[in-house]
Amino acid sequence: MSVSSSQSAASRNLKIGIVGFGPFAQFLAKTMIRQGHILTATSRSDYSELCANLGISFFRDVNAFLEAENDVILICTSILSLRQVLNSMPLHHLKRPTLFADVLSVKEHPRDALLRVVPEDSDVLCTHPMFGPESGKDGWKGLNFMFERVRIRDEAICSSFLQIFDSEGCRMLEMSCEEHDKLAARSQFLTHTIGRTLAELDIQYTPIDTKRFETLVQLKEGTMKDSFDLFSGLFLHNRFAQQELQNLELALNKVKQKLVEKMNEEQDLNDSKDQEHSR
Amino acid sequence: MSVSSSQSAASRNLKIGIVGFGPFAQFLAKTMIRQGHILTATSRSDYSELCANLGISFFRDVNAFLEAENDVILICTSILSLRQVLNSMPLHHLKRPTLFADVLSVKEHPRDALLRVVPEDSDVLCTHPMFGPESGKDGWKGLNFMFERVRIRDEAICSSFLQIFDSEGCRMLEMSCEEHDKLAARSQFLTHTIGRTLAELDIQYTPIDTKRFETLVQLKEGTMKDSFDLFSGLFLHNRFAQQELQNLELALNKVKQKLVEKMNEEQDLNDSKDQEHSR
Repeated sequence: MSVSSSQSAASRNLKIGIVGFGPFAQFLAKTMIRQGHILTATSRSDYSELCANLGISFFRDVNAFLEAENDVILICTSILSLRQVLNSMPLHHLKRPTLFADVLSVKEHPRDALLRVVPEDSDVLCTHPMFGPESGKDGWKGLNFMFERVRIRDEAICSSFLQIFDSEGCRMLEMSCEEHDKLAARSQFLTHTIGRTLAELDIQYTPIDTKRFETLVQLKEGTMKDSFDLFSGLFLHNRFAQQELQNLELALNKVKQKLVEKMNEEQDLNDSKDQEHSR
Repeated sequence: MSVSSSQSAASRNLKIGIVGFGPFAQFLAKTMIRQGHILTATSRSDYSELCANLGISFFRDVNAFLEAENDVILICTSILSLRQVLNSMPLHHLKRPTLFADVLSVKEHPRDALLRVVPEDSDVLCTHPMFGPESGKDGWKGLNFMFERVRIRDEAICSSFLQIFDSEGCRMLEMSCEEHDKLAARSQFLTHTIGRTLAELDIQYTPIDTKRFETLVQLKEGTMKDSFDLFSGLFLHNRFAQQELQNLELALNKVKQKLVEKMNEEQDLNDSKDQEHSR
């Protein structure tokens, strides 16, 4: 893993075609447009009106979208729909080599899926912006951006794409998709699991909250703004997640065990005191 | 439950004798001294040097401590040692009616223990400042302070004692010890349980942390600054805690169940697609 320093490489305006125009894509698009990039989009739902307002050409027809000669095709689908969406795209319609980049929250899964379908002369860049509309609402400065140059020949295009995030002040982290998934299973997936567990418990603010409890209510509320599809994608398509879920269960069990042991100790102590008194 | 507004009742300087002079008592004592109250202390460990530095008379001999004619005896022991400490105090040595107040993180337990041993002509006030050296390091303004007037005849002394917290800007919450314990089992105890579970998991900052995960690492680190004795006290002496621990386990189990169901759904979907393809 390495942290890139801010590159001064000449970056150029890109033609970026976004596949899947949900909230996260919309969030990224705003910054890209501000930076002067030319955006088009396609999605299973109809976002033509929203796109028109943003100055983005929306294509309902995926063939027309692919023929628009983008420098970058940016995959912003949900994790669960990735394979189906890729399979439905007639990628032989591409007129020239293109950089395929993705922003999914798991990384080995889109890497493998892209390598399977992307034409041999096109490049593949896997990325994960570790932020979203909430944590990135006041800018992206200091927020983590992970990427792996999976198959890059056109360095200029790849570098211009990374500049989008680098120039906003993101902490650029180059690491393998495997390393990402290992770390994310222990961090992002666990965070979502705890947030959803707190939602199942239906925790609410009380009149006597401690500051730490307040952060848990905030965690619950933040997590529930994300879809269950995202959460289950983090689990189903990160091969390290199942083990971390087991680890979490074991850890909770150990904590419980320690409490039970302490309860027995205290009971023994009280019993022996009672015996002393009764002598 | 009611929230008291800032009282303008004339408050006076009190003679406060602290029983148990650990970190939390030391933290409270600094503000009480600044406000002009006269403090004495006794503790199972020898804090005579620390007390001398703070301008507090420290008594190793509990008889002498009790004969010092305090307005308030403030119980700051750990939850687990409360009964033993109270039993070891020859309260018949008191020269006059005294307000017994406590600041323990569970409330029915000290209420019952105090009512059992405090002389009939002395008063009992149960309180829980919902903050500590960490969350209260920049002042107590807006922090929650719970209390129940369990047995109060001397309103002037009780009110002067509450003024210590009210005048610092605490949110004063009058509620029953039972209501406190119900709410705290779902908030403070759960928070400690999750913090300790994360410590068992040994979660650490990673290079690709999300903001939400960072709050969990902070929660873990904050929780582990508190003793296991405090945590087990929250469990053993709050009759609502055991149920909340069970609820937490059930909630985690439900979240897991939902993931497994989704996994099976996706598997079925893939199987049916494979069958379509093989036709």
